[in-house]
Amino acid sequence: MKKSIGAQTIVFPTPVFIVGSYDKKGQANMMNAAWGGICSSVPPSVSVSIRPARYTYQNIIQKKAFTVNIPSTKYIKEADYFGIASGKKENKLKKAELTAIKSDIVDAPYIKEFPFILECALLKTLEVGAHTIFVGEIKDIKVDENCLNEKGQPDMEKIKPFSFDPATGRYFEIGKYLANAFSVGLSIQKE
Amino acid sequence: MKKSIGAQTIVFPTPVFIVGSYDKKGQANMMNAAWGGICSSVPPSVSVSIRPARYTYQNIIQKKAFTVNIPSTKYIKEADYFGIASGKKENKLKKAELTAIKSDIVDAPYIKEFPFILECALLKTLEVGAHTIFVGEIKDIKVDENCLNEKGQPDMEKIKPFSFDPATGRYFEIGKYLANAFSVGLSIQKE
Repeated sequence: MKKSIGAQTIVFPTPVFIVGSYDKKGQANMMNAAWGGICSSVPPSVSVSIRPARYTYQNIIQKKAFTVNIPSTKYIKEADYFGIASGKKENKLKKAELTAIKSDIVDAPYIKEFPFILECALLKTLEVGAHTIFVGEIKDIKVDENCLNEKGQPDMEKIKPFSFDPATGRYFEIGKYLANAFSVGLSIQKE
Repeated sequence: MKKSIGAQTIVFPTPVFIVGSYDKKGQANMMNAAWGGICSSVPPSVSVSIRPARYTYQNIIQKKAFTVNIPSTKYIKEADYFGIASGKKENKLKKAELTAIKSDIVDAPYIKEFPFILECALLKTLEVGAHTIFVGEIKDIKVDENCLNEKGQPDMEKIKPFSFDPATGRYFEIGKYLANAFSVGLSIQKE
């Protein structure tokens, strides 16, 4: 039996994206954004939703660029802190003792210590009520070499990302391998 | 040391959304969409990216409604099958032996057997190259009663959703609880 719980912002899983941008003075800032995901295959694009009040909002409008930094579980404290503090008031990267590197492709910083980085050029925006969707064209992905598999592709089990549960406000690990996509369902297709 | 792997459509974690819609004849269809996520808090909204060639694309344009059905690991075969077959050629729900229920709120069907359902009214669209972002206002969420916690909120560990790894095309479980959000990072804030 199903129960209505009303209109809420809950899906599973929800990512933990740390969005990197530069302010007018060239200072790197990072924010924690749970509302986002891949949004097109051609060009490869990712979206993140940001409120106008966020420091990152004006940064992206001005620089037309941002990064998406995926933290490993090792940096869960730092990732959460980026969602608590504001770049208007403090230098978050300095306080978190993490290193901002200037992307060589777009005008945005990424976090040296995080294993998986998307470098994005602002492509489009769309206002949806309280948030604006920023669509970034993924210009390159940079991955820690020790997080690649034998085919040179990112190995999620080495990257160790985590997810956010918006229903209860908690972080969870990625769990065990279950099955291959475009494969496990073929048995139904063939019936 | 970081290595460039080029522009690819990879983030972690990526969801497995089964998008429900009705065609012109009123037949329920389901597709598997990995590109999407929550995109605004007010109004509560979710986005899914769909190519024009998909059967679901015209369905949503016509009915201005869709559902997002979150499968539990128990239904991994069915969820994967929805990403392999096309509603243009077959009645996917019938073949998967799952039950379509007409939403009482929007003109779209949801899957009775899946534990977590978003009922959405089409709010906006945005073309991004090969895909179109469909923004749906979440009108209600329906959850299996045995998947609610003592506070009446969805319990992810009971829902048992899974994630898609776009780097290697594999499905993974949600893993263990790690920490509370807006909490574990406070130790850095206070330093």
